[in-house]
Amino acid sequence: MYAYADLDKSQLQQEFARLTKEYDEIRSLNLSLDMTRGKPCVQQLDLAKEMLTILGTTDVRSKDGSDCRNYGVPFGIIEARELFAEILGTTAEHVIIGNNSSLNMMFDTLMRAVVFGEANSERPWSEIKNRKWLCPVPGYDRHFLVTEKLGFELISVPLLPTGPDMDVVERIVASDPDVKGIWCIPVYSNPDGYVFSEETCKRLASMKTAASDFRIFWDNAYVVHHLYNAEKSGVPDILSLCEVSGNPDRVYEFASTSKVTYAGAGISCMAANATNLSHAKKILSVQSIGPDKVNELRHARYLPDMDAVDRVMRAQADVIRPKFEKTLAILDEELSFSGVAQWNKPTGGYFVSLYVMPGTATEVVSLSKAAGVALTPAGATYPYGKDPTDSNIRIAPTFPSMDDVDKAIRVLCTCVRLSAVKKLLEEESL
Amino acid sequence: MYAYADLDKSQLQQEFARLTKEYDEIRSLNLSLDMTRGKPCVQQLDLAKEMLTILGTTDVRSKDGSDCRNYGVPFGIIEARELFAEILGTTAEHVIIGNNSSLNMMFDTLMRAVVFGEANSERPWSEIKNRKWLCPVPGYDRHFLVTEKLGFELISVPLLPTGPDMDVVERIVASDPDVKGIWCIPVYSNPDGYVFSEETCKRLASMKTAASDFRIFWDNAYVVHHLYNAEKSGVPDILSLCEVSGNPDRVYEFASTSKVTYAGAGISCMAANATNLSHAKKILSVQSIGPDKVNELRHARYLPDMDAVDRVMRAQADVIRPKFEKTLAILDEELSFSGVAQWNKPTGGYFVSLYVMPGTATEVVSLSKAAGVALTPAGATYPYGKDPTDSNIRIAPTFPSMDDVDKAIRVLCTCVRLSAVKKLLEEESL
Repeated sequence: MYAYADLDKSQLQQEFARLTKEYDEIRSLNLSLDMTRGKPCVQQLDLAKEMLTILGTTDVRSKDGSDCRNYGVPFGIIEARELFAEILGTTAEHVIIGNNSSLNMMFDTLMRAVVFGEANSERPWSEIKNRKWLCPVPGYDRHFLVTEKLGFELISVPLLPTGPDMDVVERIVASDPDVKGIWCIPVYSNPDGYVFSEETCKRLASMKTAASDFRIFWDNAYVVHHLYNAEKSGVPDILSLCEVSGNPDRVYEFASTSKVTYAGAGISCMAANATNLSHAKKILSVQSIGPDKVNELRHARYLPDMDAVDRVMRAQADVIRPKFEKTLAILDEELSFSGVAQWNKPTGGYFVSLYVMPGTATEVVSLSKAAGVALTPAGATYPYGKDPTDSNIRIAPTFPSMDDVDKAIRVLCTCVRLSAVKKLLEEESL
Repeated sequence: MYAYADLDKSQLQQEFARLTKEYDEIRSLNLSLDMTRGKPCVQQLDLAKEMLTILGTTDVRSKDGSDCRNYGVPFGIIEARELFAEILGTTAEHVIIGNNSSLNMMFDTLMRAVVFGEANSERPWSEIKNRKWLCPVPGYDRHFLVTEKLGFELISVPLLPTGPDMDVVERIVASDPDVKGIWCIPVYSNPDGYVFSEETCKRLASMKTAASDFRIFWDNAYVVHHLYNAEKSGVPDILSLCEVSGNPDRVYEFASTSKVTYAGAGISCMAANATNLSHAKKILSVQSIGPDKVNELRHARYLPDMDAVDRVMRAQADVIRPKFEKTLAILDEELSFSGVAQWNKPTGGYFVSLYVMPGTATEVVSLSKAAGVALTPAGATYPYGKDPTDSNIRIAPTFPSMDDVDKAIRVLCTCVRLSAVKKLLEEESL
C-alpha cells in the first residue's frame, strides 16, 4: 500500500480496477445508510426518558409561583434562565428562553434587524442594499441559509483551528460598513470541531468595525458537548468580553438543549446585554405569548444544576464516542496510507470533517449515494453550497448504529480512493 | 330605581352622593382582583392534567413511525394535523402545526408577507408605503398590535352581530389596492362573542379586492369554545368558500389548543391552500427545525378525535359557564334599570363585552383600578388603543374565582353608574 501520489500510471490503473471491483461489490449489497444530518440516535434520546413524566400531574409551578401551564412570563421561567446562564457562564438577567429551536431564535433576531434595525442602527438593515455577512468556512449550512434568505451577500472567511482567520475578519469589518455580522460556532465548530482560542474571542470582541451596529451571532450549540470527560472548552464568556472591550451591544449568543435532551423537543435560549434584550423584547412581546413554560419546567427539573448537565453529557458521550472513534479508526486504516485525504479528530460536537482530494468531493458523495450511503451534499458546508476546492465532506456519525457506521465509513473510504485514483489518471492523461 | 336619563338634577345629585359613598366603602376593602386578560383558571388547566404524563416514558412515535423526540417532520405529525383538520372542517393536507402560540404563526405569516410578499405579490409588502389593514371593532388588541408593529395603517370597520359590516368592507377593499387584509375572529369574536353569519363568510370569500394579494387572517381561536352544549357555530369552512369563490389564495386560518389544554403550552396550527402553504414552507424550513413534536403527540393522545374534543370542551364550559352567568346576572341586576349600559350575552368564547355610557369607559376602568379591580384598559379593543366613543369595556370572567367574579363585577357596576351620573351632572351644568 503506497501513497497514491507515488504510483505510476500502470499502478494507478491496477488500483482503479481493484477499487472499481470493490465498489461494484458494495453496490450489490443494496445498502441504505443515512449519515446526512447531525441527529442523535435512539439511545441518546432514551437517556432523557424520565423527563417525559418528570412533572407528574401536579408539578406545574416555577419557583416564583407562576403556573407554567397558563399565559405569562413571556421570556422564560427563572429556573430555565438560570440553567442556561450557568451553561454559558453568564447571569440569568442576560438570558431569555425560546421554544425548541435555537435556529428559530437566530432567524427571528436577524429578521428583526432586517425589518426594524438594531437598537443603535440608523435604519433597518433591509435598507442596506448590499448588506453582507461573514461566514467562516467550512461552516453550518443552515446558518448560511438564514443569512442568504434574508438578503445578505455571504462572504467566506477561513476557519482556522483557533477560530475565524482574524487577520482577514478584521480587515473586512474595518473597511466595509455593509458587513453587518458574522456567524460563529465557538466550541466544536460544525463541521471542523475547532474550539476558538481566547485570543480569537478577544479580537472578535474588540475589533474595530465600520458598521456601528455590527453583530456577532455566537451559536454555542455544542458548549457542553464534550466527547472526553476531562475536556472543558475554556472559551470565555463573550458577553463580558464585548462589554469590557467597549462593544457591549456587539453579540447575541444562542444555545439549546437539542443535543442534551431532545433534538426536536428541547428548549433554547438567547443571551444578550440589556440594550439588545430590551430591543428584542419590544418585538417579541408583540410576536408571541412566549414559549412553552411547561417544557421549560420539565428541563429545569431534569437539569437542576451543572452537575446534572455534566452527568447527562457524559452519558451522551458514552453513547457516541465509540462511533467517533470507529469513524476515525476506519479513516485511518483505509485512507492514511493513500495520502489523498485528511480529517480532523474532534474532541466534542457532532461531526468529523473530512477533506478528500480537491475536485472529488462531489463525486465521492455521488458514488456513496449510488452505493446506498447518504451523506451531507458536497459543498453544503460553504455559502451557496459551493465548496471552492470541492474537498470537504461532513460526516455525522451519531445517528447510525455502530455496525452501520462501520459499513458506511468503509463505503465512503472506497469512494474517496476510487475518485482520487480516477482523478490522478485523468491528470496523467492530460 | 329609575333610568338615569329620567332623573332630574337633584335626583342625580342624590344618586351621585349615594354612589360616592358606596364607592368609598368599596375602596376601603382593599380588593385586589384581576380581570385583565382572557386566561383560563386553575380548574380549567387541571382538566388536562393527564396530558402531562400521557406518553409515559416510551410512547414517542407518531403513526408514521417518526420519533417525535428527534429532528424531522417540520410541519407537524399527521395526528396533530388531522386533529386540527377535523376541528376546522378541512383536511390534513391544508394544515401545518406550530408551537404553543397561534399569535406567533400569525405574526410570522404577516412578517413573511412584509419581507417577501405573498405568492402572487408583485413586491414585498414592505414596499407598499401606505399599506393598510382592516380591523373589525371592537376586536383583539394583540391582532391590532401585530399589524401596527409591521407598519400597517389600521382601518376600523364596524363589527355587527353577523360579522364585519360587509357593505363597508366591500367598498374599501374594492377601491384601495393598499388594503392588504382583514382580521377576523369568526366564532365568538373577541370581545363581542359574535358568530359570523354564512352570508358574511360568503361575501368575504367572494368580494372583489383591488389588491390581488389581499389576505383574510381568519383566527378561529374559539371554534370549539361553546358555553352551551347544544350550540355549534355553523360557520362554514372558509378555505372551501374561498376556493369555490375563485379566490383560493385569499385566506390563512389559525387555531390553537390554548384554551382546550394549556394557555401557555398548547399547540397551534395554520390552515391554507397548497399555494400559500408551499410559499410559507420555503421560509419556515429556513427559519426553524419545526415545532415540538413531543407536545404534538401528547395532544394527539389526549385528543384522539372530535368526541374527545367535545368532551373536554363541555368540561371546560362547566367550569366557566357559571362565571359568565354570574357576570351577566350582576350586570342585569345592577345596571339594567339605569339604562346607561348594554352588554352582549355570549354563548361561547372568553369575554363579555360591556358598553358603558359613551365618554365614560376610561373613567370606569380608572375608578375600578383605584378600587382594586384591574380591567383591560379602556380602548384596548380598538386600533391604537382609542375607542372613539370611549364606551367599550372587555370583561374576562374566566380566571377569577366565582366569589371574585361576584365582587369584581359589583365594583365595576358601581363605577359604571358613578361615572354615568357624574357625566350626566356635568352635562346638566353646561
